[in-house]
Amino acid sequence: MNTQTPNEKLSLLRSHMQQHQIDAFIAMSADPHMSEYLPEYWQVRLWLTGFTGSVGTVVVTQDFAGLWVDGRYWVQAEQQLNNTGYILQKQSHDPASTHIAWLAQHLTKDAKISVNGQNISVQQYNALEDIAKQQQFKLETHLDLISEIWHDRPALPLQTVWQMADGLNALTRVEKISAIRDALSTKNASAHFVSSVDDIAWITNCRGRDVEYNPVFLAHLYIDHSRTVLFIDDAKLSPELQANLEADHIEIIAYAQSAEFLKQIQNQVVLIDPAKVSILHAQAITLHNPVIQDINPSTLFKSCKHPSEIAHVRNAMIKDGVALCHFFHWLDTALKNGESINELSIDEKATAFRKQQQGFIDLSFSTIAGFNANGALPHYRATPDHFSQIVADGLLLIDSGAQYADGTTDITRVVPIGTPSNEQKRDYTLVLKCHIALAQTVFPEGIASPLLDSITRQTLWKYGLDYRHGTGHGVGFALNVHEGPQVISYYAPPTANTKMRVGMITSNEPGLYHEGKYGIRIENLVVNQPKVFADKTYGNFLEFETLTLCPINTQCIVLDLMTTDEKAWLNQYHQTVRERLSPHLQGEILNWLIENTQAI
Amino acid sequence: MNTQTPNEKLSLLRSHMQQHQIDAFIAMSADPHMSEYLPEYWQVRLWLTGFTGSVGTVVVTQDFAGLWVDGRYWVQAEQQLNNTGYILQKQSHDPASTHIAWLAQHLTKDAKISVNGQNISVQQYNALEDIAKQQQFKLETHLDLISEIWHDRPALPLQTVWQMADGLNALTRVEKISAIRDALSTKNASAHFVSSVDDIAWITNCRGRDVEYNPVFLAHLYIDHSRTVLFIDDAKLSPELQANLEADHIEIIAYAQSAEFLKQIQNQVVLIDPAKVSILHAQAITLHNPVIQDINPSTLFKSCKHPSEIAHVRNAMIKDGVALCHFFHWLDTALKNGESINELSIDEKATAFRKQQQGFIDLSFSTIAGFNANGALPHYRATPDHFSQIVADGLLLIDSGAQYADGTTDITRVVPIGTPSNEQKRDYTLVLKCHIALAQTVFPEGIASPLLDSITRQTLWKYGLDYRHGTGHGVGFALNVHEGPQVISYYAPPTANTKMRVGMITSNEPGLYHEGKYGIRIENLVVNQPKVFADKTYGNFLEFETLTLCPINTQCIVLDLMTTDEKAWLNQYHQTVRERLSPHLQGEILNWLIENTQAI
Repeated sequence: MNTQTPNEKLSLLRSHMQQHQIDAFIAMSADPHMSEYLPEYWQVRLWLTGFTGSVGTVVVTQDFAGLWVDGRYWVQAEQQLNNTGYILQKQSHDPASTHIAWLAQHLTKDAKISVNGQNISVQQYNALEDIAKQQQFKLETHLDLISEIWHDRPALPLQTVWQMADGLNALTRVEKISAIRDALSTKNASAHFVSSVDDIAWITNCRGRDVEYNPVFLAHLYIDHSRTVLFIDDAKLSPELQANLEADHIEIIAYAQSAEFLKQIQNQVVLIDPAKVSILHAQAITLHNPVIQDINPSTLFKSCKHPSEIAHVRNAMIKDGVALCHFFHWLDTALKNGESINELSIDEKATAFRKQQQGFIDLSFSTIAGFNANGALPHYRATPDHFSQIVADGLLLIDSGAQYADGTTDITRVVPIGTPSNEQKRDYTLVLKCHIALAQTVFPEGIASPLLDSITRQTLWKYGLDYRHGTGHGVGFALNVHEGPQVISYYAPPTANTKMRVGMITSNEPGLYHEGKYGIRIENLVVNQPKVFADKTYGNFLEFETLTLCPINTQCIVLDLMTTDEKAWLNQYHQTVRERLSPHLQGEILNWLIENTQAI
Repeated sequence: MNTQTPNEKLSLLRSHMQQHQIDAFIAMSADPHMSEYLPEYWQVRLWLTGFTGSVGTVVVTQDFAGLWVDGRYWVQAEQQLNNTGYILQKQSHDPASTHIAWLAQHLTKDAKISVNGQNISVQQYNALEDIAKQQQFKLETHLDLISEIWHDRPALPLQTVWQMADGLNALTRVEKISAIRDALSTKNASAHFVSSVDDIAWITNCRGRDVEYNPVFLAHLYIDHSRTVLFIDDAKLSPELQANLEADHIEIIAYAQSAEFLKQIQNQVVLIDPAKVSILHAQAITLHNPVIQDINPSTLFKSCKHPSEIAHVRNAMIKDGVALCHFFHWLDTALKNGESINELSIDEKATAFRKQQQGFIDLSFSTIAGFNANGALPHYRATPDHFSQIVADGLLLIDSGAQYADGTTDITRVVPIGTPSNEQKRDYTLVLKCHIALAQTVFPEGIASPLLDSITRQTLWKYGLDYRHGTGHGVGFALNVHEGPQVISYYAPPTANTKMRVGMITSNEPGLYHEGKYGIRIENLVVNQPKVFADKTYGNFLEFETLTLCPINTQCIVLDLMTTDEKAWLNQYHQTVRERLSPHLQGEILNWLIENTQAI
């Protein structure tokens, strides 16, 4: 049990810093895989400070302790840091607001900074090193101060890894490794080291349960032209899977041996993704080998789903749609009958209906069910200590998704409760128009995805409205619900890696949030499909096929604000939803579907 | 007279290369000011090769002579290079297609490359130097081989410079220089060197006639916290202007002395724009001083026109609109009367009507009048040797503009001749819809301008159509018709400098080109204006005010393709055109205006 307070841990940390003559200690929100979700072992920032947000950076000196968090979490961090000894540091787009700027300003020459080289990426380390060189600080990356003071630190997870069923993946792992070797050659590299766990899951056609929501397992992977080495705790592998991997010429070496292995390799030019490899691993490689820094080839490969994989996703979408019809029918009935429901029961019910579906593995992220003011917080999560009852009038926002064996889902719907206001109806209609604008877009193959965002937002902009999150994130195939490289967001840099290619799956999720009042978001997943024209003068074009199958509530639509085209899109979408889901539904639920997919 | 053939010049060049032990000679399309239009003295590539396009790079070795040009000019260069000794090198977006890649591939270690340091920018030189370091080439930047062989090389222009009339500019030059000094401080620079002639014209509130179309004069400018030095041939300055400049504490030093002056300065940190300063000047500065490379502060300042300057531009637009009503009335009458007209007579007539307007200085670029297939070449220019008669059916594209004392104009209209085809009408309507989509956009202040391009093009994309040029370029205030930093183009990198600010003037010019058949482009200039909303939660928004005043032909519009909103925009635009221009027109011309601004 964790019984020490943040203050007690802080003074213990400071005394260990003194023993090692460390002037400043940094804890990043990261693990050696640079994952979005961390195993408990690596939740150092949470353990130190008690702050439960997804991202934050800790800096501790003898007379200062701070936590840097972005705008999403300022209110929450202010509350959670109360009486911890940590001061909230508000990070913004201003470079002067970062922990690196703070270090430059507050430390003196020759100051010694400790950061665990296992959980800082090459990219993050380079930024730190730039300042360290300018200010003549010393960087220490091999010290693990946290292990010294966290006595009941949890073990790393050891969940069993499984091989995906035959027929789910379009390529075998041998074919994928061969494609990576070809890509290495075009980049003048001879070897490759991968730490990102979704890349490794994709390459090996295996999945696991080492972290929440993402069906991945902790491992590193090394590939050169003669060897493929998977660094993994072999307790995770059944004898059968181990034999399968070895039959495909994949060597198994202990997870903890990856850095030592890298120190031994020689005469290779090693490709690494600087955002996805720890400085500790990079330093091991560069002991004897030059590196080339670029995106992992597998990140680009896995973003483009093969037609047979998209067919599987369509099937997963039917299952998700069936579960959601059951859920929304339950919700409507409960509301009609005046049952007491709250945000937590919504999460429980939606999860329960999904669990009944074949191939259900897990949720793909924690359900967001936010009524009125709670819906205005894009990252809201109801907890047993803090949740709202669904009563009186307003809007209920539900953002949820699941991991099935054959696909990953992510959907947001907004439901009117009681009598929505005219303002709520107008706003709902505007967000729907944004959603339809993107859904109907045709665009040149290879355009940088951020450039499509203005098409989505133009309706809201005409009313002086906007939303402070991206319109679309990439989605994996039975893998992470957030994956790159494409992103539909005018905040994101339109790099070469964000080019739109056939088979990429992305979310389409415009929103609108009135703080303290209500929030709206309408989200479907879409996949890039070729749009064929007879005349190829202007090259190839793409369009979106909408994958998600679930009625979009029409009670809040202000018909006068909708164009004929927009109504036609919505009616066509509802027709597709009805056609695909009705064979799987009966009775009351089927009636609910038919009623909720009527043309407007 | 220039009587030598390109072949004769080439062998003379090669013999001088041998004398100086030069293995490769490079001629850039540039002058020491990195201008778009070059004085004859700097038209080295034209003199050597006879190629008349606007951009091209020459590389000569003892056994090779090549000219690198981009896709716009491949056909033209192929013809013009015939029997010159130069081989056309097709430059594309592929880095392997550049002259630098050619040098890397074909020269051997220790090869000596001569490029005149006066007309290669710091940015271009850095790219060359990277390869030179890799391949161990030697770069020679102080040799002027062309002056050795070009015996009748024209002198630099010495046109008189004038000060703009009082009241035209919102700020005095003293105020502008003070603002630049403030900007230097925020960038930790103490001094600034400017070579770009439009920046210098803007800072000094002076104009000149040293090159075609751009009302600028050749000069360099140095500013630090105690001195402002204008490097200019004083034959260009009237005693009165010289006295005015000196009264404003601007020292005058001979144009040719700029590099020597820079070699003498010390203890300064000098801000230079690496795209706008020659390597020769940069090397002179770095002899004793560090440099900071960034965009010229004046480039950002001058892009944002003051409300009083926009009022002047509105006035210039009335004059341009009046001239165009006379012109289009003449064209309609001539066509009705069956007069013989051709592309050249269109250019002459349009120019003649503009010359009648008060404050006319020059055209702002060479008129493009292209009938049918010629209109499909975005950079077409009719010449006495090659032009088309305006006969039979088709579309006539006219892109033209003028420099007035109080504003710069740039407008494209398309006129149906005889009976346009259904395809032509559809395409015309699609381009008009694109134009209106951008004209009606509301967008967040500070958004990178390239991100707005997809709003313009989405209509064409839905038909598998597109156009291979940007949608909008910045336009100066009584200055260059092409100026940065904003650009509405999905081909352009959305850098921080492209942020949209109040007062920027940009063109709105979507198009469509069917090679060998016809071209369409509809262009107005627009200015960024604040769009005020009561609720400021999402920050400030901008909208475009259309400045150009000239009827858009409605005979080609397919009404069924236009939405109610789009028709309303066009009718409102035509009402504004009629209201603003009718007080300045009488009789037949006024009737023409009224007839051509009827609501659809």
